[in-house]
Amino acid sequence: MTNIEKIQKKLIDVDALIISSPYNRRYFTDFKSSAGIAFITKERSYFLVDFRYIEKAKATIKDSQCIMLTKRKEQLSEIIEKENVKKIGFEDDFVTVAEMNRLKNDFPEIEFVPFSAPILELRTIKSEIELDRMKRAQEITDKGFEHIIKFIKPGMTEKEIALELEFFMLKNGADALAFDSVVVSGKNSSLPHGVPGNKKIENGDFITMDFGAAIEGYCSDMTRTVAVGYVTEEMKEVYNIVLKAQLACLEKIKAGVTGIEMDKIARDIIYENYEGCFGHGLGHSVGLEIHEMPAFNTVCDKVIEEGTIMTVEPGIYIENKFGVRIEDMVYITKDGLINLTSSPKELIIL
Amino acid sequence: MTNIEKIQKKLIDVDALIISSPYNRRYFTDFKSSAGIAFITKERSYFLVDFRYIEKAKATIKDSQCIMLTKRKEQLSEIIEKENVKKIGFEDDFVTVAEMNRLKNDFPEIEFVPFSAPILELRTIKSEIELDRMKRAQEITDKGFEHIIKFIKPGMTEKEIALELEFFMLKNGADALAFDSVVVSGKNSSLPHGVPGNKKIENGDFITMDFGAAIEGYCSDMTRTVAVGYVTEEMKEVYNIVLKAQLACLEKIKAGVTGIEMDKIARDIIYENYEGCFGHGLGHSVGLEIHEMPAFNTVCDKVIEEGTIMTVEPGIYIENKFGVRIEDMVYITKDGLINLTSSPKELIIL
Repeated sequence: MTNIEKIQKKLIDVDALIISSPYNRRYFTDFKSSAGIAFITKERSYFLVDFRYIEKAKATIKDSQCIMLTKRKEQLSEIIEKENVKKIGFEDDFVTVAEMNRLKNDFPEIEFVPFSAPILELRTIKSEIELDRMKRAQEITDKGFEHIIKFIKPGMTEKEIALELEFFMLKNGADALAFDSVVVSGKNSSLPHGVPGNKKIENGDFITMDFGAAIEGYCSDMTRTVAVGYVTEEMKEVYNIVLKAQLACLEKIKAGVTGIEMDKIARDIIYENYEGCFGHGLGHSVGLEIHEMPAFNTVCDKVIEEGTIMTVEPGIYIENKFGVRIEDMVYITKDGLINLTSSPKELIIL
Repeated sequence: MTNIEKIQKKLIDVDALIISSPYNRRYFTDFKSSAGIAFITKERSYFLVDFRYIEKAKATIKDSQCIMLTKRKEQLSEIIEKENVKKIGFEDDFVTVAEMNRLKNDFPEIEFVPFSAPILELRTIKSEIELDRMKRAQEITDKGFEHIIKFIKPGMTEKEIALELEFFMLKNGADALAFDSVVVSGKNSSLPHGVPGNKKIENGDFITMDFGAAIEGYCSDMTRTVAVGYVTEEMKEVYNIVLKAQLACLEKIKAGVTGIEMDKIARDIIYENYEGCFGHGLGHSVGLEIHEMPAFNTVCDKVIEEGTIMTVEPGIYIENKFGVRIEDMVYITKDGLINLTSSPKELIIL
């Protein structure tokens, strides 16, 4: 079933959907553009896009009628009338107040109904095609890790390492980066979301690298912490606790668990000796966006379904000392998971 | 005067402003973060940001009181009460319908007033600090051009060239890229917004490169078209018409002109022989965002004010043959302009 067919099954209380956010547009058209409107009725689907994209859209999109967007109001009115549309679902988590006012002004007879949630829910469960893209994105990311651990030398800056890693992934098949890479070292590695800076790598540093490639819009996401030169006993202990927490979670994850349950497994192991040092959730869903719903954390009680792709990323952060995080991306199955990440996890000392 | 003081002067019909968009937040705090809320009253300013950023925010932000964001509703309520706020201006072109509903729900006694336009208007006029950042961003971009024309060889792909150019700017001081670079060659150069692909550079190609660096959030933007190996008479003619159109505009631009007037100067020169081959506007304002208001185009009748930074980028695109675009970024003065772009513009044949 196509993504359009899947959402059409959910068009019960509305006659049509209007889609303008980049991610949802790409989800329903599988077409990359900086603008455009997907309009989906119970029976048909339209994609309105401007002169820059129309030729390519017509050539590649098979399950929507592609129309060159010239006058939005007039063109949508025509479709609305032809399809006898009275109620339209809209992306309430994307459409701005100003844009909503324009829509109400342009189509005063239409009732607009919030519809972001059912779309996001649909996007949670990945198809074979989506899984394949994310597998390929993660393969490039794993290759990036293999490359960068050979490249890192004391004296290099975090920024130099981040750039080399990103450049490598882009040269080796990534369509784009999934997000701005995190490369933090030494004391900086205690910042979960630090930005690569001009700090130079020194012996005795931990380096935490959180990065990912994107293929046809779909993201990958992994983190590894490696040591340079040597590690102290404390660093080794912390590393092994994080690894133990991650492996314990990977052991338990399968369709039917909740985010809270999974987060607790990691948190209990970490808090035994490092209470308060794990300041974020265990993981999040990934897809066209790097952060999707549901999440593994202390509040998400949603049951994780088969076909979801999640990160599993426990960490320990000791302020002004160092931090460790280990993250894999996994595909949830009925009985367990398929780990899409293949990079080694035992402590590497460069 | 600080940006906060400037907007406080515009708080006449409202008691306060709530700012959550990344660009406006950065404009008023000069602080980079992925989240946070600026709350500006007629007399004071607050910045609420989570645990990841609070330490750095407190250390660097001088004209706002920094508060660790924990419970938005409770914390904002306290400020609203203390400051006796009844009417709040909000970013109607950023706040989503879902978010607006949450705000109205959390603060039922408050009247929310659309306020995006006055903020954008303020952002149009650049301060000395902003100008300095954009100058530095453009210097790196010019260096990128100098580097890339030495690097380009037939047989390379557009994507390889784009990556080298981006990598060079990031290694040479750019904090980030201003936007995804356009590198299009041969027939592809007739696509104004083409994406770098696997097409290999051949002798006889035009290559159009549209790219920019960002410094402390502020963007630069330039385009050059260069030839490889040789040019035909037609290519030379088209190049010289685009250059003539650009120079004619640069000659006339100063504070007080309108976008329509300036666009017409370029369009008239181009349409003399190439009617219909200039499918976009002459230019746009730049700042924290790569596209700001006002614009040089066929519809923008807004008077361009002193202190605005605009691009001037005429082009000719001949379908299935080639395209040429030349773009500089200029600072508008009372009597003319300061051209921030220093790269050569005569036809370069590599």
